[in-house]
Amino acid sequence: MSDKRLIVVALGGNAISQPHQEGNVGEQFENSNVTARQLADLVDQGHHLVITHGNGPQIGNFLLRNEVAAGEIYPLPMEVAVAHVQGGMGFMIAQTLTNELDRRKHDRVVNTFITTVLVDLADPAFLNPTKPVGRVLNQDEAVRYRYNDGWQTREVEPGKFRRVVPSPNPIRIMEIDAIRRAVDGGDMIVACGGGGIPVARDPDNGLHGVAAVIDKDLASALLATELDVDTIMFLTAVDRVAVNFGKPDQRDIEHMTVAQARQWLDEGQFPAGSMGPKIQGAINFLEASKKPGASAIIGALGKAADARKGKTGTRITKA
Amino acid sequence: MSDKRLIVVALGGNAISQPHQEGNVGEQFENSNVTARQLADLVDQGHHLVITHGNGPQIGNFLLRNEVAAGEIYPLPMEVAVAHVQGGMGFMIAQTLTNELDRRKHDRVVNTFITTVLVDLADPAFLNPTKPVGRVLNQDEAVRYRYNDGWQTREVEPGKFRRVVPSPNPIRIMEIDAIRRAVDGGDMIVACGGGGIPVARDPDNGLHGVAAVIDKDLASALLATELDVDTIMFLTAVDRVAVNFGKPDQRDIEHMTVAQARQWLDEGQFPAGSMGPKIQGAINFLEASKKPGASAIIGALGKAADARKGKTGTRITKA
Repeated sequence: MSDKRLIVVALGGNAISQPHQEGNVGEQFENSNVTARQLADLVDQGHHLVITHGNGPQIGNFLLRNEVAAGEIYPLPMEVAVAHVQGGMGFMIAQTLTNELDRRKHDRVVNTFITTVLVDLADPAFLNPTKPVGRVLNQDEAVRYRYNDGWQTREVEPGKFRRVVPSPNPIRIMEIDAIRRAVDGGDMIVACGGGGIPVARDPDNGLHGVAAVIDKDLASALLATELDVDTIMFLTAVDRVAVNFGKPDQRDIEHMTVAQARQWLDEGQFPAGSMGPKIQGAINFLEASKKPGASAIIGALGKAADARKGKTGTRITKA
Repeated sequence: MSDKRLIVVALGGNAISQPHQEGNVGEQFENSNVTARQLADLVDQGHHLVITHGNGPQIGNFLLRNEVAAGEIYPLPMEVAVAHVQGGMGFMIAQTLTNELDRRKHDRVVNTFITTVLVDLADPAFLNPTKPVGRVLNQDEAVRYRYNDGWQTREVEPGKFRRVVPSPNPIRIMEIDAIRRAVDGGDMIVACGGGGIPVARDPDNGLHGVAAVIDKDLASALLATELDVDTIMFLTAVDRVAVNFGKPDQRDIEHMTVAQARQWLDEGQFPAGSMGPKIQGAINFLEASKKPGASAIIGALGKAADARKGKTGTRITKA
């Protein structure tokens, strides 16, 4: 694939959920409609999109429903929950973008692929679960879930616990050939929702889901690499990546090289829960790309088209 | 598409859930593994598969979780629930079939498309909801849901009620071009899960989901028509279609024409909840097909390959 118009767009949590909202389905569709207009601006620029998205609030609420109803109805395991939420969110994102493209007379269909992502059970992440999922638990609940369900929990504040699951590195997007074919055929695609459904390969029994969460920015970077695009965009809530964030000498960055990004990442400039994975994803993508002009752009969802043109956002390049 | 190997296989409820089971995820995967072996037998015969499936027990349980947890967490509307279950069940069916094909050295990937199906809000089904969804309600609950949530309910036994939703005719599979392209590219596809997510077109606001359930056999027939296959198979729990079912003069049918099928359907030989939609789907497919040799096969899931060869099952043809 050498289509310069093709870009991978990784949507941040704010694309679907706003912190001040309950997060119900009506609100999600409203937010998704706003996001669709930003994405359609990129299509107006001549771009063809492969879209990825997180699922944090949605999977949290999904697991909460599971838990509240557990006395009456069997629960769904983590990876099956991720598959469900890919379906629900993919339907919403594809539909709102299809509608917006139709309004703008772009003859494009947006399809959702249920996407599984290979991980390695020997990944050290499985020995050190770090990704919090689900609601805050008190100590009694944490103990109960540890003993009854084998959960691992972590004390996030004194007396407050959350379940943590491993966040292994994505190795391969299992549906990549089909995604590539669909893109070549002219479809816009929603893929790798929530980072993808983590699957591992067992020599005897084949592929099976694992209770883990793949970072969606790292999965998006892998997808961009496998599609061999020129550009990946991470759309989020801030205009630009900053160093010394929140300090008197905070500096917003317009451009950085991979070497500079890695140095700041190693210095702890980018927090693990937010900007860190985007920077790591950008580094992974750029290091793997053979294209000298490859770039990763991190910018505000509300200014996607301007970020693509370099008017805002942070651009990361090989050199 | 004129690939004679391509067949649409519509899986009945027994492919994933058995009546004597709780229906939990472990059981669903076990059943799905057994189903995968039957499907792989068809692949061994040289067939390429597009697979559809129902979602009755799964969507019922999904809605029950919604309902039990409604005091704590926003519920998901019907059509969004269908989208979720397409993701969850598609993941399972695609994974178990991918594994089985891998064991048999078929180099094929199975992908799941989130599938929306266009319906017409002027369809008379919207004036007469007939499809029961969710759990059995007592009279107080039925009254409460009618007044608070606008549900329509029907008394299924004295004092026992269920929510009913419209079951409109499927008009168009919105993702058909993408599905066709994926099939042409060599992928096996899971599509139209639960009959597809029903969507209607609003002149001002584009496509939007509607609270309805499309019959999965009718959706499968439409898919078979749009893919222009030679054969559709409806795999279910019985070996053959019967007339005078359960009576002393019950007769199992090896072959019938569309004209004969329609006559028996009109006579009420095939109940609405089970064999009726399969016969109607077969009629729809055969009447739309321009191929003189087109056939619909209704037979036992456990004998899929033999049914394809005509050793068992009921074959319906134009003449």
